[in-house]
Amino acid sequence: MTEAALARWRARVEAALEAALPDPARDPQRLHAAMRHGVLNGGKRMRPLLVYATGSALGASDAALDAAAVAVELVHCYSLVHDDLPAMDNDALRRGQPTVHVAFDEATAILAGDALQALAFEQLATAPQASDVRIAMLAELARAAGVAGMCGGQALDIDATGRAIDLPALERLHALKTGALLRCAVRLGALAGHATPEQSAALDSYAEALGLAFQIKDDLLDIEGDSATLGKTAGKDIAQDKATFPALLGSAASQARLQALSAQMQAALDALAIDTEALSLLARQVVQRQH
Amino acid sequence: MTEAALARWRARVEAALEAALPDPARDPQRLHAAMRHGVLNGGKRMRPLLVYATGSALGASDAALDAAAVAVELVHCYSLVHDDLPAMDNDALRRGQPTVHVAFDEATAILAGDALQALAFEQLATAPQASDVRIAMLAELARAAGVAGMCGGQALDIDATGRAIDLPALERLHALKTGALLRCAVRLGALAGHATPEQSAALDSYAEALGLAFQIKDDLLDIEGDSATLGKTAGKDIAQDKATFPALLGSAASQARLQALSAQMQAALDALAIDTEALSLLARQVVQRQH
Repeated sequence: MTEAALARWRARVEAALEAALPDPARDPQRLHAAMRHGVLNGGKRMRPLLVYATGSALGASDAALDAAAVAVELVHCYSLVHDDLPAMDNDALRRGQPTVHVAFDEATAILAGDALQALAFEQLATAPQASDVRIAMLAELARAAGVAGMCGGQALDIDATGRAIDLPALERLHALKTGALLRCAVRLGALAGHATPEQSAALDSYAEALGLAFQIKDDLLDIEGDSATLGKTAGKDIAQDKATFPALLGSAASQARLQALSAQMQAALDALAIDTEALSLLARQVVQRQH
Repeated sequence: MTEAALARWRARVEAALEAALPDPARDPQRLHAAMRHGVLNGGKRMRPLLVYATGSALGASDAALDAAAVAVELVHCYSLVHDDLPAMDNDALRRGQPTVHVAFDEATAILAGDALQALAFEQLATAPQASDVRIAMLAELARAAGVAGMCGGQALDIDATGRAIDLPALERLHALKTGALLRCAVRLGALAGHATPEQSAALDSYAEALGLAFQIKDDLLDIEGDSATLGKTAGKDIAQDKATFPALLGSAASQARLQALSAQMQAALDALAIDTEALSLLARQVVQRQH
């Protein structure tokens, strides 16, 4: 039942992303094709699923959540397009496909990322919520995407490469780099579902644990996985001398931390007097995923 | 009097930009410094001036226009940071200073541009207008920045480099690449000033002529100017085999076109029953500027 809901939401956001992206038959065709390549690539759609699962638990209709789901995924996808660039992570492979700058060229990849970010805000500006809710959602996404969120975290990550940082610094880095946008997805769902302050606080606790768990699991997969299963280059954290949780804590302590975060997520969900089955399943998937 | 108003608005937006940009003493310092380098660089602030001049003519207070002025300039500045990258125009000099990727590095320049775009939307989301006006402003800026505006125009420009395009294609390219954001600046001022549909139509006509005039003048300065006066590399259009108005029309016909656009701007302003002295002065400055 809940697995089916996730599959339905995944299909729903794919269709919504497809509809939101510019027509590949129209000029500038190469830019439009690059944007589509960077988005319609078989991604897991974790952030849209969080929007749907949160909003739906609070009584919002799927149709009321599409714009937010699309917007947060567009921001995520633009960040991947830019992160893969030669001047950044220099990654040629993503989800088993050539990255945008490899399939197209660097200039087009830079522009495609830029245009995807603008499209995210455009989508949210035309969401079906009342103006004041939309404004709150737009402010939330802008903060999560900027220096106090994703871009700031990416900059901290670059600063940290090749030098020693401690656990609090690593946690802060990831709270911004990946955590902010995951928390934003939950918050957009909460805003669309008119969450009470108490519900918002519990959902924030869930989302913060989820973001950290997501990154610890990512780090563990990078050292344990292989490129074929991951659909991206394995072992690149070590190759690039990046600080990771297993590097700082060891694998076993990282696994234990993951279990503690799992418990935090379930406790947060248990505090909510709503049907959080889908959010609970997403939490388990983050902790148990193999790629 | 009007010259003084422009100087006052220019000082005003410098202070507002300074306040909107992240603290250079806080982490990630390098990203924050790069963002400031890309914005606080002695730019002409044409887009903010258009916001203030338009909104003010319609009765909006300067304070009501600051967020829009900042937002549109942040989008402009982020686009310059990305356009200057080696994979794009590969420009080392802007307004007499090293470009962001030269003063910092490419990864930081990409991130700084990304973060500036997010900051633009964040600023506008917290503008003092009523929610429905803010939503309209946000939608306007997102459209002007994306595929139907600046990014689309930049992609058309890349497509056109090194091959022959005709005059309508060149006009469309610039209507998107530089025109969309200039028109957006006027529209943000119009929205903040609660322009009537008739006023908006006249202001659109003014803004469209201004955008085209701005580009024709830019092309003329590129072939006539020298790097010291321009504060950027002169002759780069020819060096990069870019389509320009003088290359397609010749200098004399380009000058004549500029005068015709000047007349169109004045006719549009004359149709407005408001004090358009500042908009008129900005039009003259675009046509007569030497850098």
